[in-house]
Amino acid sequence: MNTLATPKGFRDFLPKDARARQFVAGRVRATFEKYGFEPLETPTIEYASVLLGKYGEEADKLVFRFTDRGDRDVALRYDQTVPTARVLAQYQNDLPRYFRRYQIQNVFRAEKPQRGRYREFTQCDIDIFGSTCPVSDAEILACTYDAFKAVGFPTVTIKYNDRKILFETLAPYAGEQLTVLSIIQTIDKLDKIGDDGVVAELTAKGLPAEKAADAIGEIRRATPTEALMKIVAAARSLGLPETALQFDPSLARGLDYYTELIFEVVVPEYPVGSMGGGGRYDNLIKQLGDVDMPAVGIAFGFDRMVEAATALGLIPSTGSGAKVLVTLFDPTAQDAAASAAGALRAAGIRTELFPAFDKLEKQLKYADRTAIPYVLIIGEEERKNGVVQLKNMTTRESVTLTVQEAVTRLRTDSD
Amino acid sequence: MNTLATPKGFRDFLPKDARARQFVAGRVRATFEKYGFEPLETPTIEYASVLLGKYGEEADKLVFRFTDRGDRDVALRYDQTVPTARVLAQYQNDLPRYFRRYQIQNVFRAEKPQRGRYREFTQCDIDIFGSTCPVSDAEILACTYDAFKAVGFPTVTIKYNDRKILFETLAPYAGEQLTVLSIIQTIDKLDKIGDDGVVAELTAKGLPAEKAADAIGEIRRATPTEALMKIVAAARSLGLPETALQFDPSLARGLDYYTELIFEVVVPEYPVGSMGGGGRYDNLIKQLGDVDMPAVGIAFGFDRMVEAATALGLIPSTGSGAKVLVTLFDPTAQDAAASAAGALRAAGIRTELFPAFDKLEKQLKYADRTAIPYVLIIGEEERKNGVVQLKNMTTRESVTLTVQEAVTRLRTDSD
Repeated sequence: MNTLATPKGFRDFLPKDARARQFVAGRVRATFEKYGFEPLETPTIEYASVLLGKYGEEADKLVFRFTDRGDRDVALRYDQTVPTARVLAQYQNDLPRYFRRYQIQNVFRAEKPQRGRYREFTQCDIDIFGSTCPVSDAEILACTYDAFKAVGFPTVTIKYNDRKILFETLAPYAGEQLTVLSIIQTIDKLDKIGDDGVVAELTAKGLPAEKAADAIGEIRRATPTEALMKIVAAARSLGLPETALQFDPSLARGLDYYTELIFEVVVPEYPVGSMGGGGRYDNLIKQLGDVDMPAVGIAFGFDRMVEAATALGLIPSTGSGAKVLVTLFDPTAQDAAASAAGALRAAGIRTELFPAFDKLEKQLKYADRTAIPYVLIIGEEERKNGVVQLKNMTTRESVTLTVQEAVTRLRTDSD
Repeated sequence: MNTLATPKGFRDFLPKDARARQFVAGRVRATFEKYGFEPLETPTIEYASVLLGKYGEEADKLVFRFTDRGDRDVALRYDQTVPTARVLAQYQNDLPRYFRRYQIQNVFRAEKPQRGRYREFTQCDIDIFGSTCPVSDAEILACTYDAFKAVGFPTVTIKYNDRKILFETLAPYAGEQLTVLSIIQTIDKLDKIGDDGVVAELTAKGLPAEKAADAIGEIRRATPTEALMKIVAAARSLGLPETALQFDPSLARGLDYYTELIFEVVVPEYPVGSMGGGGRYDNLIKQLGDVDMPAVGIAFGFDRMVEAATALGLIPSTGSGAKVLVTLFDPTAQDAAASAAGALRAAGIRTELFPAFDKLEKQLKYADRTAIPYVLIIGEEERKNGVVQLKNMTTRESVTLTVQEAVTRLRTDSD
């Protein structure tokens, strides 16, 4: 029965999950803004011609494409880079020479639904367009680190490499049958399938086993390029701790379009692979939007970050739920209850006024059920004495106070 | 040429507009949370069967509907009420008995593009489900008022009425040919076409002119119902100022499903009609999702609010753009510049590090162009003396300070 179902591969976020998402998005966004990144929004729908032919043949099949009522061939946002390339081309004269934008929007991919893979998910990108200066690469690294720390992750490691190391080291091993990119794609699997696996795969691709082993050894012995050293120096000046950066000459990253710096973020306390990655891509925007525009940036694995932050207990339990429930027993109690709720809210305290006339017991049960940590009880006796009872739902203890004292108590209580 | 175009009826929001939208959304969301509303997110795509047949025949034509690659008949979110009805039915056992949710998401309508009407726009709803208590109606009114005030609107007026007044007063004028709802639809136009226009339209509908005039007069003389008086009393106890509420017995609201309270928000300083409206609708959720669930809520005209807030100058000019640009002249200046940027950001100051080695003149021009109010200049001379120059881009005055003094100065400067 369709009527009551969420479409396959799509998700509803009930309050608890929606709050976790908002918490992560809020912390990440605040960090982006501290680094001077500006927000950009593009529409959910693009002309299909804008998107197709940009992601590769396999990916094109995953684009949600349809004909609208005006017979236009349109498609749903598949990533944020291609629409941004369109914006860069279309508004060239309205944008500053150096453009640093962030974008947090949903994208759509018609993938086979499976654990951890959805047809609608959130992308969260920052990029600096127009600059080839190493400080821009460093800004991206430092901002990435700060954004993860702002969410509360205890340890954040950024593995980095220079695509040029891979190209230059591996070029001698390539030949007519085996491209450098193909070798890189296999080297990229070192973490997953180990040395033996990589040697086996390269052998299958036509490289003699001995040479394959040599290639791995040579990559491992590679040292940072001068370009990387400049970026790292700038990142350290920006305040990125030395221990957070980890040179990894075998890091390859999947996407072909990176030209120099590549990096990915790992949270050792939640080792499910990369939590985001990026690099410098100086040619892509020209290919996509016909504007010469060097670029460096990162895409955060937003859904995975939320999952990790939830698993590690980083989401404040009362994130945006009410902090206090004001009771309501009968119509005669309404004025005192509503006035107290008004006073609490005026002081910035998240307050819910119970939305029915009911028994105390029921209202306390409701507070427990919805995890509201305090209940402000205003019964006949309290009204007569001009006081309220503030009940802590964890300790189950109550104190008798004036409304103003309750406001002060709740405001200073850690939030 | 499609490649560089935004689809017709859709919009790109470049940073200035995106910032304005975020400012309004942020203020509104914070108010919702202060009232204990919880976030809810539903997917952009629903099964077409969930949406169609719910909005009326005309509206059904405006639904973006298509067949996905799995041959499923799907559609894009058209509003937030129907998906919420699905959630209420689907997760009955996971949701609290009284459920107050807010939802800020984009909806899609295949309308003819025209000024102020778009095919993708933002809806912003709050609703309390499960309660028939007048305090819930009052909570919605008070939260609505506070949300508009939080955005900064100087005056906010809420016109309100009870649908029952219209039904009871106008029933005697209805007959076999003319339903009460049809009379209400014409009465709804009093503001736009005046008494004469309404009389003419009712006459055309078959009501004698004299009776039509009587109906208008009778509606105007109507007094608030007891239900309204209870709601208003509770709203006042919650802190809603008396002057903000304006009883208007001729207010009708377009949608048929309201059962009692109806209201709309007007900002007299930006008189473009209603900025949002809502009411109580106790039967709709049962019709949509087969769950008995009284409801009261409001839909904010988000895009119109952003437009009004921008026109009235309520959007802070440095909302989330950088507050200070740190200069960068050459590689030897990099460490000092990056360290200063790191110190500013550590203090929470939105900082952009110039992303290239360039002349001061160019960097000042860039700051002007991007409306960054301060520039922190660190030249060779400054580095030698361990100081910086902080230039105010409005007054064009510079002061020589240590980095720490600059941090203090920028932090205390009104933001």
